[in-house]
Amino acid sequence: MDIYEKETITDYPFLNLIRARYKDTAGTDRTWLYASRQNSAVPDAVVIVPFHQQENKLVLIKQFRVPLGGFLYEFPAGLVDSGESIAEAGRRELLEETGLTVVEVVNQSPAIFSSSGMTDESISLLYVTCEGVATTEHTEASEQIEVLMLSQDQAAEFIRRDDLLFDVKTWIVLERFASTGRVV
Amino acid sequence: MDIYEKETITDYPFLNLIRARYKDTAGTDRTWLYASRQNSAVPDAVVIVPFHQQENKLVLIKQFRVPLGGFLYEFPAGLVDSGESIAEAGRRELLEETGLTVVEVVNQSPAIFSSSGMTDESISLLYVTCEGVATTEHTEASEQIEVLMLSQDQAAEFIRRDDLLFDVKTWIVLERFASTGRVV
Repeated sequence: MDIYEKETITDYPFLNLIRARYKDTAGTDRTWLYASRQNSAVPDAVVIVPFHQQENKLVLIKQFRVPLGGFLYEFPAGLVDSGESIAEAGRRELLEETGLTVVEVVNQSPAIFSSSGMTDESISLLYVTCEGVATTEHTEASEQIEVLMLSQDQAAEFIRRDDLLFDVKTWIVLERFASTGRVV
Repeated sequence: MDIYEKETITDYPFLNLIRARYKDTAGTDRTWLYASRQNSAVPDAVVIVPFHQQENKLVLIKQFRVPLGGFLYEFPAGLVDSGESIAEAGRRELLEETGLTVVEVVNQSPAIFSSSGMTDESISLLYVTCEGVATTEHTEASEQIEVLMLSQDQAAEFIRRDDLLFDVKTWIVLERFASTGRVV
């Protein structure tokens, strides 16, 4: 595959469409359209998998998501600011969105790709243990967030509910926690 | 949150930007831009987690992805055609991309969301056992795919390599397989 041209065909501040022109393996000229944050940081975002040690519970948030027009169950997450490490961004976002403090980083994924057919977006998963009392007082006014903490049994019940919307990463980790009691 | 207008602000066949206008919790007018496939099927796509019974190995593909300009390690996947069930789409895509046949559907997630800050895209994860010999002879000319089968030990080695690009779902499942020998 030979990508010989990339053109940003929209002009918005946070998200744009890019058209790539390339030759496929048969030598045919093709185009592929995808969405990009065109963020300078790699990965674009950090997604925190927070495990509350004292409570022995997995921490999730319930957040209104405009693209879905409803509430999504997901992990705390946010864009990585320029010059910030992934662990720093993770600590900051966890505190802002849940009031909880990182105790230890247990695992950190490389930059991994959200949905590579439609976007170049990548995230890093930061598995942490955390402590403190959940609060959303640090939340920005534009966000509408609730914090949930789930035991293994609660996770097993939760994941069976068909009236809730889940993020991909959160569903996979919840399913593991529900069946094994562990997230790493 | 009150979304009172949605406008599709580009006009492309497979992917578009949508601008939603809404009032936040403080009553302030805001806009949110996101990418949409505007597919009639829910979920948009099926992602197959194939476990080869006889080989006792997890099946991945290596595929060129235009948005990344490189090869990505990921699970077989594809859009769900109109009128097709998720299991049917999964059987079809697994055969097309790997030559392998589904033996049993072990688990099926609901529609779960890829990256809800930037897109309304949803997928369903279809955990299957499969059989047969891997081949890419059913692959479309525009795709460039290799099939890989990994044992638990191979998965543990594979996931530590920093020269490879991974899809989010694939990385999480690989990490579980590497540490526990199981994917469900």
